[in-house]
Amino acid sequence: MDIGKVIGTVVATRKDPSLEGTRLLIVQPLDEKHNPIAEPLVAVDTLQDAGVGETVYFVTGGDAVGVQPGKRMPVDVAIVGIVDSVTLIEELN
Amino acid sequence: MDIGKVIGTVVATRKDPSLEGTRLLIVQPLDEKHNPIAEPLVAVDTLQDAGVGETVYFVTGGDAVGVQPGKRMPVDVAIVGIVDSVTLIEELN
Amino acid sequence: MDIGKVIGTVVATRKDPSLEGTRLLIVQPLDEKHNPIAEPLVAVDTLQDAGVGETVYFVTGGDAVGVQPGKRMPVDVAIVGIVDSVTLIEELN
Amino acid sequence: MDIGKVIGTVVATRKDPSLEGTRLLIVQPLDEKHNPIAEPLVAVDTLQDAGVGETVYFVTGGDAVGVQPGKRMPVDVAIVGIVDSVTLIEELN
Amino acid sequence: MDIGKVIGTVVATRKDPSLEGTRLLIVQPLDEKHNPIAEPLVAVDTLQDAGVGETVYFVTGGDAVGVQPGKRMPVDVAIVGIVDSVTLIEELN
Repeated sequence: MDIGKVIGTVVATRKDPSLEGTRLLIVQPLDEKHNPIAEPLVAVDTLQDAGVGETVYFVTGGDAVGVQPGKRMPVDVAIVGIVDSVTLIEELN
Repeated sequence: MDIGKVIGTVVATRKDPSLEGTRLLIVQPLDEKHNPIAEPLVAVDTLQDAGVGETVYFVTGGDAVGVQPGKRMPVDVAIVGIVDSVTLIEELN
Repeated sequence: MDIGKVIGTVVATRKDPSLEGTRLLIVQPLDEKHNPIAEPLVAVDTLQDAGVGETVYFVTGGDAVGVQPGKRMPVDVAIVGIVDSVTLIEELN
Repeated sequence: MDIGKVIGTVVATRKDPSLEGTRLLIVQPLDEKHNPIAEPLVAVDTLQDAGVGETVYFVTGGDAVGVQPGKRMPVDVAIVGIVDSVTLIEELN
Repeated sequence: MDIGKVIGTVVATRKDPSLEGTRLLIVQPLDEKHNPIAEPLVAVDTLQDAGVGETVYFVTGGDAVGVQPGKRMPVDVAIVGIVDSVTLIEELN
């Protein structure tokens, strides 16, 4: 479960039938202070709601498969929420 | 299965319906000597019991999906225990 | 979910029965600017449509298992789409 | 599937109900020549048989979930065998 | 899905019952030019056919679990094919 910023889109007309109608977005992973970490990745926008420039949180791996009930998609990164705020309460000593 | 310290919270009002009512916490992974390792990550608190500043252990990957029986959540990091103590008995020679 | 370029093929006559009839391709992972990142890997071409030199997107991990309905294959990298274009709309500031 | 040495224990009284009665051990991953590699991790001892100082092999990821039939545990590292010997037959040329 | 060379064996008499009768091999991962990459790992030989010195391809993660129909094994690396040849057709420009 990670936080990232939507920075672009991917267009693909030939694809697995179960992916028809889904949007593919490029997400730049961020750390908890909103600095970029790791490489951008391609995520399915299961909320159908994430816009370019927004901060989202996403899941990776097998979990991303089940995000749409009754529809098993070959997906391994899925946007599952839009982040309103991140609060760091306790720093490590 | 890793150990970490809860250092903050994430607020997200728009999210996957199956995530309604869950708490999202920021966890700093620690090694067995309680030094920070790797980037903090966002975890679902399935115990509904972990407070900021506490040491927890968490699971990642597909396993985290099944933590709430009968409810499949798009989750890939889940807090599953509060750590009382870590004992290093044998060092490697 | 990552983007890559097909750069070669793997031939294997002795293999798990569930893999009979599948094509194995070597894919070089690319970042969103089409620069190579990480090591090439071996992917199953579930579209039966990806040619050498094409840009594809692929999934990894447990998700890749379910790509052919009714047929559970021991697969952990699967090509699920051919990329037409990648658009970077917003750079991080 | 990796090899490691048991070097300590973790005590946690508050935890996910499905984890009651399991032992949590700290395992130092080793390479095939018994040198430590990577960070120690917390593993469930599903054999109920691994002692501190023993060399074990363990699985990670979703596979670790199913190690106890009929009991789905939120587990991502599980000890599944005690290693008697490791034999390196062929070095790479 | 990766390519590797079988370089040794692991003997373990005490192990999870579902692993009885399986062979454990040490596999050195190779890149597409047959150079060693990453650490050797322990794989289950589900083909019962891979010999020391042979080039194999293997899967990792949850996919490896289902390689033997009707038998769920706690396995996360499984050999699923013997490689005859690897052909690099197109280099990246």
